[in-house]
Amino acid sequence: MTIHTFTPTHYFSVLAVAPPVLTLAPGDTVRTTTVDAHGFDAIRRQVTPPGNPMTGPFFVEGAEPGDTLVVHLDAIVPNRTYGWGNTMLAPNVVDPEFVRELPWPPPGERRRSHWHVDVAAGAATLVEPEVPGGMVLPLAPMLGCFGVAPAGGEAISTATSGPQGGNMDYRGFTAGVTVYFPVFVPGALFFLGDGHALQGAGEIAGTGVEISCDVQFTLDLQKRRRLNWPRGETATHIFTAGNARPLDQALQHATTEMARWLQEEYGLTPIHAQTLLGQAVDYEIGNVFDPAYTVICKLAKRWLPLETDV
Amino acid sequence: MTIHTFTPTHYFSVLAVAPPVLTLAPGDTVRTTTVDAHGFDAIRRQVTPPGNPMTGPFFVEGAEPGDTLVVHLDAIVPNRTYGWGNTMLAPNVVDPEFVRELPWPPPGERRRSHWHVDVAAGAATLVEPEVPGGMVLPLAPMLGCFGVAPAGGEAISTATSGPQGGNMDYRGFTAGVTVYFPVFVPGALFFLGDGHALQGAGEIAGTGVEISCDVQFTLDLQKRRRLNWPRGETATHIFTAGNARPLDQALQHATTEMARWLQEEYGLTPIHAQTLLGQAVDYEIGNVFDPAYTVICKLAKRWLPLETDV
Amino acid sequence: MTIHTFTPTHYFSVLAVAPPVLTLAPGDTVRTTTVDAHGFDAIRRQVTPPGNPMTGPFFVEGAEPGDTLVVHLDAIVPNRTYGWGNTMLAPNVVDPEFVRELPWPPPGERRRSHWHVDVAAGAATLVEPEVPGGMVLPLAPMLGCFGVAPAGGEAISTATSGPQGGNMDYRGFTAGVTVYFPVFVPGALFFLGDGHALQGAGEIAGTGVEISCDVQFTLDLQKRRRLNWPRGETATHIFTAGNARPLDQALQHATTEMARWLQEEYGLTPIHAQTLLGQAVDYEIGNVFDPAYTVICKLAKRWLPLETDV
Amino acid sequence: MTIHTFTPTHYFSVLAVAPPVLTLAPGDTVRTTTVDAHGFDAIRRQVTPPGNPMTGPFFVEGAEPGDTLVVHLDAIVPNRTYGWGNTMLAPNVVDPEFVRELPWPPPGERRRSHWHVDVAAGAATLVEPEVPGGMVLPLAPMLGCFGVAPAGGEAISTATSGPQGGNMDYRGFTAGVTVYFPVFVPGALFFLGDGHALQGAGEIAGTGVEISCDVQFTLDLQKRRRLNWPRGETATHIFTAGNARPLDQALQHATTEMARWLQEEYGLTPIHAQTLLGQAVDYEIGNVFDPAYTVICKLAKRWLPLETDV
Repeated sequence: MTIHTFTPTHYFSVLAVAPPVLTLAPGDTVRTTTVDAHGFDAIRRQVTPPGNPMTGPFFVEGAEPGDTLVVHLDAIVPNRTYGWGNTMLAPNVVDPEFVRELPWPPPGERRRSHWHVDVAAGAATLVEPEVPGGMVLPLAPMLGCFGVAPAGGEAISTATSGPQGGNMDYRGFTAGVTVYFPVFVPGALFFLGDGHALQGAGEIAGTGVEISCDVQFTLDLQKRRRLNWPRGETATHIFTAGNARPLDQALQHATTEMARWLQEEYGLTPIHAQTLLGQAVDYEIGNVFDPAYTVICKLAKRWLPLETDV
Repeated sequence: MTIHTFTPTHYFSVLAVAPPVLTLAPGDTVRTTTVDAHGFDAIRRQVTPPGNPMTGPFFVEGAEPGDTLVVHLDAIVPNRTYGWGNTMLAPNVVDPEFVRELPWPPPGERRRSHWHVDVAAGAATLVEPEVPGGMVLPLAPMLGCFGVAPAGGEAISTATSGPQGGNMDYRGFTAGVTVYFPVFVPGALFFLGDGHALQGAGEIAGTGVEISCDVQFTLDLQKRRRLNWPRGETATHIFTAGNARPLDQALQHATTEMARWLQEEYGLTPIHAQTLLGQAVDYEIGNVFDPAYTVICKLAKRWLPLETDV
Repeated sequence: MTIHTFTPTHYFSVLAVAPPVLTLAPGDTVRTTTVDAHGFDAIRRQVTPPGNPMTGPFFVEGAEPGDTLVVHLDAIVPNRTYGWGNTMLAPNVVDPEFVRELPWPPPGERRRSHWHVDVAAGAATLVEPEVPGGMVLPLAPMLGCFGVAPAGGEAISTATSGPQGGNMDYRGFTAGVTVYFPVFVPGALFFLGDGHALQGAGEIAGTGVEISCDVQFTLDLQKRRRLNWPRGETATHIFTAGNARPLDQALQHATTEMARWLQEEYGLTPIHAQTLLGQAVDYEIGNVFDPAYTVICKLAKRWLPLETDV
Repeated sequence: MTIHTFTPTHYFSVLAVAPPVLTLAPGDTVRTTTVDAHGFDAIRRQVTPPGNPMTGPFFVEGAEPGDTLVVHLDAIVPNRTYGWGNTMLAPNVVDPEFVRELPWPPPGERRRSHWHVDVAAGAATLVEPEVPGGMVLPLAPMLGCFGVAPAGGEAISTATSGPQGGNMDYRGFTAGVTVYFPVFVPGALFFLGDGHALQGAGEIAGTGVEISCDVQFTLDLQKRRRLNWPRGETATHIFTAGNARPLDQALQHATTEMARWLQEEYGLTPIHAQTLLGQAVDYEIGNVFDPAYTVICKLAKRWLPLETDV
C-alpha cells in the first residue's frame, strides 16, 4: 500500500491507451494535482491547452479486460483561490423559444463568472459579475472528468463520456466516494481532471466553479467483475452512471446497470430487485451539457441485504 | 376560510371542463377522499373504472385565465391498509436489449405486489411477493395526479400530464407542499387523485404503492400571475415541473420556467439568475413512465433574495 | 353509395365526441370544404378562430370501437388563390446555438410569406417576401390534420396528433391516398381540415402553404380490424404513421405497426417480415414541429405477397 | 489525375490519425477493395477482425484543417456473390413492449440471412431463411461507413458516426454521389469500408446485405471551405448529414448545416433560404441503429440559384 506522489508534466485531452506515468500495485495511493478545464494550474499558469486536460494515465498491475477498477476518491482540494464559470444557461437546457432571451455576451466576447474559493471557510464567493447581496455558495469539490482507457483502440475526447467514464460532471463525485470502472485495456489506465469547487446539478451553465486541485486517490482491482457502466458507492448509497443522449437513454443505461447489480451481485431475484427499485430508487442528473448526458441511478444501502463481498 | 367536507359520488378520467362538485372562495379548505388508480375506495370497493379517477372538479370563485391557482396540500393520509403495485420495471426505462430479461408474468397474467400500509407506524410492508428478509419501506404519501382543466376545450387523460398538471407522479407532492397551476378556464376547476403511500423516483415500475386517501387541501388565488408550467414550494425550496417527452424536453420546460420565475418575480437579472442556477440548481425526476415524463427543477430558498410578494 | 354535399357552419379545434354534422352509410362520399389553419375560408373571410379548425364530425353507421375507419381522399383542391406560410425555420428544428441566427421578425411582429396559388397551372408563386429570381413551387395539395374522435372521453387539440390521427402534417396525405384509422367511439366521428397547397417534409417552418380547400372523401368501414396507429395505402405503397415525441418514439410506433401489419394481416412470419423490412423499408417525416412528431414507415407493395383481404 | 490501384493489407476499426497507405494529389483516383463488416474479403476469407474494418487511410496532399475533402464515389461493386444480414429488427427501433415479440434466436445463437448477390442481374436473392415466394431485391450498392480522421487526437469507432462521417449507413451513398467532409488533420486521412449490396432506410435490422466490394473513388480538395457536418451532392440534389442521438438532434444538425450552406455559399438571405426549405426540403434516415443516428436533409438543385463556385 504505497503512497505515490506524482507531479504531472503533460496532460491528455482524450481517454486512450498512452504510456503510463506511473505503475501502481492494487491498493496503492496517489497524491497528485489536476489543472482546471482550461489547462491552468495552481499558480494560474496555463501549462496545457484547454479542454479538460487529464492527469495520468496510471497503470494498475494485473488489471485486464473483464476486471473492475476501484477508485477511492480520498481527497479533492482546490489548490488555489481562483475559480471561474459561465454566467448563462446552455442553449440546449432551455426551451428553443427561450434561447434568444439568454444573457448572450456581445458577439466575439465570452462572459465569465469569477469566484474566490476559500477552502478553510468552505465557501466560494462570487467576485464578478457583482450581484445585489452577493453570492456565497458552500464548497463541494468534485471531479468533473475521470475514467479509464476505452476498448477497441478508441481515443475518446474528455469533452464527453461513455462506459469508460469521462466527462460525467456528476457532483456526487466528491471525496469519500468509491467509483468502479470496467477495465478495457491492460493496466486499466486511469485518468483524472476537471475539478470543480462546486457545481449545480446538470452543469446547466456548462461549467462548475472550475479550479485546479490537489487530489489523492487509491486504486484497487476486482478480478473478473464485469461492469457495463461505471458504478459507485457512498457511505449510504450505491449508484450507477449511464452516459448517453438523450437523457432517456442515459437513464435506461443506469437503471439496467442497477438492476443487473442487484440481481447478479446482491443475489436478489428480478422480482425482488425490481419491486424494490420501483418504490425506493432515486435519480440524479450528472450533466445535460456535454455531448453525452449523465444520469445517476441510486439506491440506499439500507434496503439491501447484508453486504456481500462484491 | 370555510372548511368544506366533500364526499365524491362520481369521478373523472380526464382533466376537462365539467360541472363543478363544489364552489369555493379563495382560501377555502376541502376535506375529501380519493380512490386508488383502479377506482377502489377506502373499503376496497370498486366505485369507478380504472385509470387514475379524479375527485372534483372544484370551482374557485374569481379564477380566470391568466391567474394562478394556489393549492396547499394540507394532508394526504391513506385511508385503508391495502396498497398494491407492480413487480417489474417498465420496459421503457431499461435498455431495449434488457426488456426480455424483465420478470414478465405468464401471458395474460399480471403480477402485482401487495402491501400492508400502517399509517400509525409510518411504514408499508410488502406482503406478496415474499422476499427474503421482507421489505418494509417508510410511508411518504403523495398525490400522483392532480391539476386543473386545460385550455381550448381539451380533455386530457389522467394517464398523462402537461401545463395543466395531471399525472406527474412526483414523490415531492406530499403534505405541506404548495403547488401553483396556471388557470386556463373560469373557476380553474381543480381535480385530484391517484394517491401513493410511497413511490420511488421516476415511478419506474409504473406504479407507486397505490392506495385510496383522505386528502385535505386549501385553494387560493393569485390574480394576474401567469405561469407556463406548474410551480411549487416547500419550506426550503421552490421548484418547477416540466411535463413532456423526452426527458430532455421536460427538463427544458422546467429549467426555462425556473429562469423566468427568478427573473420575472424575484427580480434577478438574467446573469444573476443563471449564474446562480448553474451552481445551485437541483433536479428530480417525477415519472419516466407516463406518456409525458416529468422533470422537477429545484432551488433552495436560502439562495434567493428576501421573499418578495409573489 | 350516396354523395353528400356538406357546407360547414361551425368548426372544432379538438378531436372529440361531438354532435355529428352528417350521418353516413359505409361507402358514402362527402363533398365539403375546409378553412385554412387560421379559420379563413374560400373568400378570405375569418369564419372561426385560428388553430386548425376542423370540418365535421361525420358519423359512420355501424362503426364501433375495435373497427377500422377507411378514408379515401378523393380530391383536395385549394378553393382560393391566396396561401400563406412562415419565413423562418422553427427554433426546435435547428441546433440550439443557431436559434439566434434565425431571421426573427422585430418583437411583436410576425412575418408571413404570401403565395399565389394557381390550381390550373399546378403552381404556387411566392408573392412576398420578394426573392431574387422568384420562387415557384409545384402544387401538391394535402390535408395537414384529419382523424377521428379519441377514446376515453379525451378531447385532443388539433395542434397535435396521436393514435387518432390529427395534426400529422404528412405531405403524402394527398388525393388518391387511402387512410385507415382505429375507431374509438361509436360512429368513428371523422374530422378534417388544415389544407396545404404544398409543404416540405417535416413542416419545418411550422406551416405549409396554408389554404382553404374543396375536399371530397369517401368513408368506409372494416369491422373488427384493430389498429394501434393510423395506416395508409397508395397505388404503390403501404404505410403506417407513428405520432409522438421524440422522433425516435414516433419511428418506433410506426415500425412496430408495420411489423404487426405484415405479420398479422399479410401472413408473413416474423422472420420473413423483418428480413424484408430490414432491406426494403423506407421512412418519411411528417412533421417535426407540432407537440407530437410524425414518422411514416413505408413499404412498396411489390414486395408483398399477393393482396389479401385486409 | 493519377489512378492508383491499392490492395489493402491491414484495416482499421477506428477513424484516427494513422500512417497513410497512400499519398494522393488532389484529383487522384483510387481503385481498391473493402472487406465486409465482419472482415471477410472477396474470397470469403476473414482477413481482419469484425467491426466495420476500414481500408485506408489515404493522405491528400495540401489538405489542412479548415479545408473540405471532396470524395467522388465513382464505383461501388460487390466483388463476391455472398451477402449476409440480420433477420430481426433491432430492439431499439420498435416499441419497448414489442421487443419480446421479435423473432429472437435461441440463447447463444445468432440468426443470419444469406443472400446470393448477382451484380450482372442487379439483384440479391434471399437464400436462407427460405420464405414463401422467395425474396429478390434490386441491388443498390453503397458504403455504410467512410470518413476522415477526427480532430483533437480522437480515435472514433467505426461502429458510430460524427462530424467526421463514419458509420452513417445512408443508402444514398452510392456510386455517382459526391460527398464533402470537413478536414480535421493534415492530409485529411480518408477511410472507407462496410459495403452493402443494398439496405433499407434506417438499417433497422442492424445490417444491410453485407458484402465485400471493389471501390473506385476520386479525392479532391477545397481550400478554406469550412463544414460542420458532411455534405453531399447527386445529379439532382444537395444534402447534409447530421449524426447524433436522438433523431431529433441528428435532424437539427442536418437542417442547420443545410441552412448555413444555402445562406453562406449560395448567397440566399436567411428569409429566402428558410422559406424555401420550409416548402421544399426533404429528409431521409441514414440509420437508427448505431450509437449515433443519421438524418439526411435534402434539397432539389432545381430550387437553387444558378450554380455558384462552391
